[in-house]
Amino acid sequence: MLTVYSPDHLYQNAQFELIDGQLLPPVDTPKRVEAVLEKIEAIKLGEVLPAQEFGLDPILRVHEDSFVNFLQNAWSDWVKEYGEKEALPLNWPARTLRQDKIPEAIDGKLGYYSFDAGTPITAGTWRAAKASANVALTAQQLLKTGEKTVFALCRPPGHHAAKSLYGGYCFLNNAAIATQALLDAGAQRVGILDVDYHHGNGTQDIFYHRNDVLFVSLHADPRLDYPFYLGYEDETGIGQGEGFNFNYPLPWGIRWPEYCQRLKQGIDLMINYSPDVLVVSLGVDTYEHDPIAKFALTTEDYLSLGKMLASINKPTLWVMEGGYAVPEIGNHITNVLIGFEDN
Amino acid sequence: MLTVYSPDHLYQNAQFELIDGQLLPPVDTPKRVEAVLEKIEAIKLGEVLPAQEFGLDPILRVHEDSFVNFLQNAWSDWVKEYGEKEALPLNWPARTLRQDKIPEAIDGKLGYYSFDAGTPITAGTWRAAKASANVALTAQQLLKTGEKTVFALCRPPGHHAAKSLYGGYCFLNNAAIATQALLDAGAQRVGILDVDYHHGNGTQDIFYHRNDVLFVSLHADPRLDYPFYLGYEDETGIGQGEGFNFNYPLPWGIRWPEYCQRLKQGIDLMINYSPDVLVVSLGVDTYEHDPIAKFALTTEDYLSLGKMLASINKPTLWVMEGGYAVPEIGNHITNVLIGFEDN
Ligand SMILES: [Zn+2]
Ligand SMILES: [Zn+2]
Repeated sequence: MLTVYSPDHLYQNAQFELIDGQLLPPVDTPKRVEAVLEKIEAIKLGEVLPAQEFGLDPILRVHEDSFVNFLQNAWSDWVKEYGEKEALPLNWPARTLRQDKIPEAIDGKLGYYSFDAGTPITAGTWRAAKASANVALTAQQLLKTGEKTVFALCRPPGHHAAKSLYGGYCFLNNAAIATQALLDAGAQRVGILDVDYHHGNGTQDIFYHRNDVLFVSLHADPRLDYPFYLGYEDETGIGQGEGFNFNYPLPWGIRWPEYCQRLKQGIDLMINYSPDVLVVSLGVDTYEHDPIAKFALTTEDYLSLGKMLASINKPTLWVMEGGYAVPEIGNHITNVLIGFEDN
Repeated sequence: MLTVYSPDHLYQNAQFELIDGQLLPPVDTPKRVEAVLEKIEAIKLGEVLPAQEFGLDPILRVHEDSFVNFLQNAWSDWVKEYGEKEALPLNWPARTLRQDKIPEAIDGKLGYYSFDAGTPITAGTWRAAKASANVALTAQQLLKTGEKTVFALCRPPGHHAAKSLYGGYCFLNNAAIATQALLDAGAQRVGILDVDYHHGNGTQDIFYHRNDVLFVSLHADPRLDYPFYLGYEDETGIGQGEGFNFNYPLPWGIRWPEYCQRLKQGIDLMINYSPDVLVVSLGVDTYEHDPIAKFALTTEDYLSLGKMLASINKPTLWVMEGGYAVPEIGNHITNVLIGFEDN
């Protein structure tokens, strides 16, 4: 299987994030992707190709202009006010506050365009985020030229990023940008299966009104876990998009036998939809020892997961999302891909 | 002038808050109120009375049950998950996320009921917040028994707290709770004049639909400063409340001559409204050397401010809000009160 990779992810290298009420070293470290790359090379999964440059156009097909403009300028605006330390928002336009006014001050903009305090903007954030989108776009282009499956080794991840909202370590929604590019190049239907531990709130938001994308997500129950405010079962799409969004909120501690049953339901939906292309938002923070998550999948289960997804039997674009157990992340990602290919 | 004070404010004594992208020692320290108390005693402003206990009823006249319940249990819920360290939220139900679901997890609740990351909940937060409401309620009761003016030395402050939202160091909206108690005891009209540097977004929210409270606020332009997402001129009330809300967003660096002109406009509105009682949300973070604010009032200007407010010539309840220049805060608060009384 081909992999697409960009070393520019190294430019997102924050010193801390807000978590559990403290500023701690970030969970989303560059080592995550480097560990996956090493494993891919060690097992000779296939060629590793560099990302091509796609410019802003495919990004602006998914994200609002003002949001992209904000991301490009956030660091320099912040540095003017506070010097060269990482940018975190302070407050948010929660209910009773206005969401129709974009403040001029950088603090106000940070809060307006974000939904959490755990996603620092650093000097290299825009460069890394744009490169990550290019990784996904390069992978989708390879699919269009006839590859059956390609792995986009994206970082920063993307599935929490909405049309004009960043958070959850995500700035640009790589899976959504690649999906839109596939549609723009002629695909009629794209399916997105999100198996990250966390709900892909950004991806859901981007396609919630549309029937050309089926979004299916398995994730921790939002009553219990991040992102908390989206990912419920009753979110089934709206307008033309009604019936094209499926959420499977799952309980903490879920093991493979039960997880597999719900995954099978999601796969059946996807088979029934019969997309031209399948995009998988691949997070392996479902692992039993993941430091920020509470599912109980084992290393071997990821082989089974890949094998099951092969049953959809469509050209498949893998987009890397979360997974924070660095020592095992390479095993888990490659197990999924091997399970898929060996089927 | 009588002052009401409770030592229980000392129970809100956080170790840090999120500000400028860092966790720093809180700006809202117990020393603020202790410095004011010392000054009041030093200049013999008048008797200092303890707060009486009013129970939950007057608080629940302003804040939602579920929010008050959350505040009462937040610390113990947090400690169960994370141990005895201060509670900060992580993410918020921003636009595109649901605001109709209250998560079960404490992190999810913290984000649901807050709008910033700079207001830590500690072991003593509820006790301090409730005592602060009792300080304001005791002062309003003294007004009802015939005092012409009373100073409620509240801390934590209150004007950022909305019906079901905390933030900006505020948990319960002391000025709003006292206002509602005055109305419940027979007042027909109460005027609230908010001269804190920051917009009183919580107070505005609580009375935005109502015509029995006139809310007038002078504050830093929300395009430029906290709370960013409320406090614009075009917010004039809604429904029956239309015409009972006036915001004066002011530019950074404003000095007394210009401030005084806008204050005069607010006072004229208040005189025209002719409230039974005037409640003043008194913040002195308009001071030229306040560490978190950017207006340019001087120590002497606070005498003039108090003098001007006396022209409204109504029973007046002073409710302490912000002001973070600790060495000068006692001078500034007492200058306002002396300016008022000496008139
Ligand atoms: Zn995740
Ligand atoms: Zn203030």
